[in-house]
Amino acid sequence: MTEKIGRAARKVAAPGPRITAVTPERGPASIEGYNAEAFSVPWLLAEIAKGGPQRNDAYVLACFDDSGLDAARTLARSPVIGIGEAAVHVASLIAYRLAVITTLSRSIAPIENNLVKYGLDRRCVKIRSAQLPVFALEQLGFDARRHIAAKIRGAKTENRAEAIVLGYARIADLANELSQEHGLRAIDGIAVAVKLAEALVGLGLIASKIACYAFALPKTYSGPFARYAPRP
Amino acid sequence: MTEKIGRAARKVAAPGPRITAVTPERGPASIEGYNAEAFSVPWLLAEIAKGGPQRNDAYVLACFDDSGLDAARTLARSPVIGIGEAAVHVASLIAYRLAVITTLSRSIAPIENNLVKYGLDRRCVKIRSAQLPVFALEQLGFDARRHIAAKIRGAKTENRAEAIVLGYARIADLANELSQEHGLRAIDGIAVAVKLAEALVGLGLIASKIACYAFALPKTYSGPFARYAPRP
Amino acid sequence: MTEKIGRAARKVAAPGPRITAVTPERGPASIEGYNAEAFSVPWLLAEIAKGGPQRNDAYVLACFDDSGLDAARTLARSPVIGIGEAAVHVASLIAYRLAVITTLSRSIAPIENNLVKYGLDRRCVKIRSAQLPVFALEQLGFDARRHIAAKIRGAKTENRAEAIVLGYARIADLANELSQEHGLRAIDGIAVAVKLAEALVGLGLIASKIACYAFALPKTYSGPFARYAPRP
Amino acid sequence: MTEKIGRAARKVAAPGPRITAVTPERGPASIEGYNAEAFSVPWLLAEIAKGGPQRNDAYVLACFDDSGLDAARTLARSPVIGIGEAAVHVASLIAYRLAVITTLSRSIAPIENNLVKYGLDRRCVKIRSAQLPVFALEQLGFDARRHIAAKIRGAKTENRAEAIVLGYARIADLANELSQEHGLRAIDGIAVAVKLAEALVGLGLIASKIACYAFALPKTYSGPFARYAPRP
Amino acid sequence: MTEKIGRAARKVAAPGPRITAVTPERGPASIEGYNAEAFSVPWLLAEIAKGGPQRNDAYVLACFDDSGLDAARTLARSPVIGIGEAAVHVASLIAYRLAVITTLSRSIAPIENNLVKYGLDRRCVKIRSAQLPVFALEQLGFDARRHIAAKIRGAKTENRAEAIVLGYARIADLANELSQEHGLRAIDGIAVAVKLAEALVGLGLIASKIACYAFALPKTYSGPFARYAPRP
Amino acid sequence: MTEKIGRAARKVAAPGPRITAVTPERGPASIEGYNAEAFSVPWLLAEIAKGGPQRNDAYVLACFDDSGLDAARTLARSPVIGIGEAAVHVASLIAYRLAVITTLSRSIAPIENNLVKYGLDRRCVKIRSAQLPVFALEQLGFDARRHIAAKIRGAKTENRAEAIVLGYARIADLANELSQEHGLRAIDGIAVAVKLAEALVGLGLIASKIACYAFALPKTYSGPFARYAPRP
Repeated sequence: MTEKIGRAARKVAAPGPRITAVTPERGPASIEGYNAEAFSVPWLLAEIAKGGPQRNDAYVLACFDDSGLDAARTLARSPVIGIGEAAVHVASLIAYRLAVITTLSRSIAPIENNLVKYGLDRRCVKIRSAQLPVFALEQLGFDARRHIAAKIRGAKTENRAEAIVLGYARIADLANELSQEHGLRAIDGIAVAVKLAEALVGLGLIASKIACYAFALPKTYSGPFARYAPRP
Repeated sequence: MTEKIGRAARKVAAPGPRITAVTPERGPASIEGYNAEAFSVPWLLAEIAKGGPQRNDAYVLACFDDSGLDAARTLARSPVIGIGEAAVHVASLIAYRLAVITTLSRSIAPIENNLVKYGLDRRCVKIRSAQLPVFALEQLGFDARRHIAAKIRGAKTENRAEAIVLGYARIADLANELSQEHGLRAIDGIAVAVKLAEALVGLGLIASKIACYAFALPKTYSGPFARYAPRP
Repeated sequence: MTEKIGRAARKVAAPGPRITAVTPERGPASIEGYNAEAFSVPWLLAEIAKGGPQRNDAYVLACFDDSGLDAARTLARSPVIGIGEAAVHVASLIAYRLAVITTLSRSIAPIENNLVKYGLDRRCVKIRSAQLPVFALEQLGFDARRHIAAKIRGAKTENRAEAIVLGYARIADLANELSQEHGLRAIDGIAVAVKLAEALVGLGLIASKIACYAFALPKTYSGPFARYAPRP
Repeated sequence: MTEKIGRAARKVAAPGPRITAVTPERGPASIEGYNAEAFSVPWLLAEIAKGGPQRNDAYVLACFDDSGLDAARTLARSPVIGIGEAAVHVASLIAYRLAVITTLSRSIAPIENNLVKYGLDRRCVKIRSAQLPVFALEQLGFDARRHIAAKIRGAKTENRAEAIVLGYARIADLANELSQEHGLRAIDGIAVAVKLAEALVGLGLIASKIACYAFALPKTYSGPFARYAPRP
Repeated sequence: MTEKIGRAARKVAAPGPRITAVTPERGPASIEGYNAEAFSVPWLLAEIAKGGPQRNDAYVLACFDDSGLDAARTLARSPVIGIGEAAVHVASLIAYRLAVITTLSRSIAPIENNLVKYGLDRRCVKIRSAQLPVFALEQLGFDARRHIAAKIRGAKTENRAEAIVLGYARIADLANELSQEHGLRAIDGIAVAVKLAEALVGLGLIASKIACYAFALPKTYSGPFARYAPRP
Repeated sequence: MTEKIGRAARKVAAPGPRITAVTPERGPASIEGYNAEAFSVPWLLAEIAKGGPQRNDAYVLACFDDSGLDAARTLARSPVIGIGEAAVHVASLIAYRLAVITTLSRSIAPIENNLVKYGLDRRCVKIRSAQLPVFALEQLGFDARRHIAAKIRGAKTENRAEAIVLGYARIADLANELSQEHGLRAIDGIAVAVKLAEALVGLGLIASKIACYAFALPKTYSGPFARYAPRP
């Protein structure tokens, strides 16, 4: 799955920078809902902390819930972008009414909270859960695809969505097929986030250090995370 | 600090149930902002997961940012209440305009996001940061107290707040003094959360298991947290 | 009906304080909509004004519309809690998406206005009217119960509600049955309000007297209400 | 005061219909805040109920809090307009940013709730209380006027208001003077409401009887109000 | 069509002022959506600029999208009212829940943006597109009428609307028929706007010149519009 | 000015595509407020319509008010991005609290409406007008710069902004200086919009043609714009 995400990212990336897809050392195999988010975040942050002085140009967090995004911005000296925020912001630039299709019903509230935080809740007419966990795409193949397609049709006809945001991290290859099949754009967060990361790098923009994204204080690391504490 | 919180809780608790104040095994010594939140949450959840079959009647999470609150609800078989949500909900029952006083400016955005999520952002006329970290109260003593008092005065006169929510976990003893001194109620989250927890226990209410608070799937535990995974 | 409400309240109350259920001297027999609200409020306030120096510990207003709640806070020297506000605030602590089931369609707008005022409109996915007036529960018995059950089912499946708030004052005994039958929590305002009142009493919190809840000026009483005017 | 309101209304009214200014039989002499609202409303409604078959063409409720407005619409067979709603709706047609100047701080929350209900809260940049009760204008004369003028200046320079809504019922004569003196329009609710009432009469529009404004059920009248109950 | 609008306006107008219905010299024959709006606005403004010193008493802009309304207020020395804003503001005075019926789906977003700007989005439960362009009413006759009637029925039963706002400029004669047929008020913007214009004239209110409605600077006119530039 | 904008755009653009800065044939020399917006839009659209079959890869509209942006999307077969929307969306990715600094007070309301439409109003803590028209930067030089710097300082200290969005189109060279001088990022819309346009081109995303951005109907062109009408 990590490699698949890497390939999707490389496909849209501008020539030049190298894209490395990384799985954190530990943490849940996939993220659906608040619990898995909570246990994945420290390991995700550890990967960023590892970067150290020879830091990366930018970080793309490839979980649609944008878990750990705010915390990552307190660590990184480069731009950090979440695939969820990337997808909905850009979708709002090409469509007035959006719909999001996510995995399980337990993911709806975290995504809705994010949309409110980003200000895009009014533009999102529906968050539909496909009732398919992250891994179902591989395991179910054609059936999963058909199931997601049904949700897209519903979002278009019942909710009058003009664009669909796909709340799965590994659906890049499916997005184009679905777009053509349904006559509306299905947006894949990985691709969008890579392009936004390139934009932020090009603009030299990183998170403002004035308030909530100020650099983390060393005290917050302990136990298995101690070795990732920033050094003065 | 943990013991101080315990004492504050016991002071308002109804007779009967025993209150145990627990410090998670690991994690940052105090929480100000997104980064410390992220690293504290798994250890906090581990404490709840430990509860096991001989579970507690209710859990009060004693961090004003309500870090890990949603995730805790996916684990616990008892009510879980955060001191931040408790304080602002109850404050809104006794005053129309609230103000929150928090530690550092990096805590303002997380709290503001919470208020929006709880629906109480319109009722909160200002979140003021005292620019004092959590431990400053002990270390600075009288000066810290005077500093917070100045913020309360400002919230009352400039923002026309009718009640102040104190975004510090260990300020219980200060709350009453401040209330009288400033002629408006300064609300301490610990006390309020204990009473709301009692209320939820009395009503037999725990988090709905239909959607975002559904019980966690075992897969989410790995590394040092593996031993806390729920057993079927 | 008053006695039934009293029994529901006593059932959840902590041991100790005595609960007295009171019907105001005059006013509409039941409240559905703006008109009945308006004519019930002065009689309700008169009951609070009567309390005088030997005042009660707390007041629970047992109308789901929370009619007269704000005005009651300008009179009482003890905490005042409405069953509507109690139910929705507490429901939001155990579920992300709520639905309210009320009596007649004329009650929907007043309830919706209240939700907006409390900040809980975004969390309430639907207010459904059962098209059954307050007294129908007694008169229709089984049929009324079946009708309300249908509304609960609809709120769960069509609106994806995770908890139901019952906008009837006397439905306490039905709430538990419905909860089990439908696999989601049906919340009765009376019980919740009693527990919140206990919490406010325990915390020593009454309405802030700085602005909108300042004590009433005597001039406002006249005609049949003159004898309830506060004495300096 | 009632007569003064009548004169203000007649001054702007179109030729033709007769304007009768009525003081309800009972109720508080003036309305500032929730308590006085509650005790004034039934007497206000009684006046409308009296109208009977030889009903008036339209009703203007001359209290800026719009107390009883919704309930009045459940009784009247003619249009009902409140001076508060009239003033803020029309003000929003001539200015982007509004400010309201009201009597006492206890009136701010009721007005703010109304603005939210009408949807005009985002357009209102500030509700300023002059800390002058309704009668102060007569009693204080020049000083009251100067005090209100200071609030208008503040709303213009500090809050960048483009129009001021005067939340006093009897300030019609002051409005024009203030408008010229401060180079921005000070809007008097009485005049605006009369013109909106004329508009509704001209359009044949009364409150929709489908939901919250459905005609009142007779049961709601009791005690001193029994004689105003609608007859089938 | 212009003449038909003129007749509808004259039908409700108070005796006295003369109503002139004007078609701008150029511009799209009808307006559905952002593109036609953009190309119609300068010609519309030119008509207002022509007015010159012997100006009209008031301007009614007879396009439901309120295209050019804000810009018109920077030119006119008399009140300007749009039929869209007029209809929704007045509808909100007689009903809690509104629905709008418009022409094509491309008109929904512009109308929704307007509602948000006016603050009336929360009160509008649905914007339904009849999928009939402006001219279809003449061309299709009975069929168009039946189609719109179906949309009204849907808004009433599915969206629980209490009043319908007709987003067509020339539907005045249809409004009354539809109102009676469906037992709820169908509101025609032309009639409402004429009455609001009369009200503003009676009150002597024009757009505040302090900020966004300040008189236009001459530089903005060029090309075919140069002759309309205001003269100092 | 057009050339200056072109240079700013080329400075951040990725190697490859050619950037052409175009001044529309006619229209106001600069845009401050609703009136100039209205008269500039058709000429702007004409430039896009000219593009014809050998169309450009993307369009950047270099007016901070985003005038004509929606209409442009109904014409273009390539992505269209406004510098206003670009700046605020990207600013919200690097800061929680934003402030906008614009030209004249007449521009504040149009920008505020845009922010509401984009969902970013809650994140924007203040729109400050520098009271300097677009051309003042050239004409006043150092003084204008000092004036804008004062507004930035105010936004940082009084409104606690973490990033500043510069609502001037030609301020690119100033942005970096101001950023360093004030310790917070001053964001220039031109640069950001160029990078977002590159992103949209890379992703193959253009405006959804399902609803409000459907291709324009030919009828909307007349008079001097007739030759730009799309040909079937």
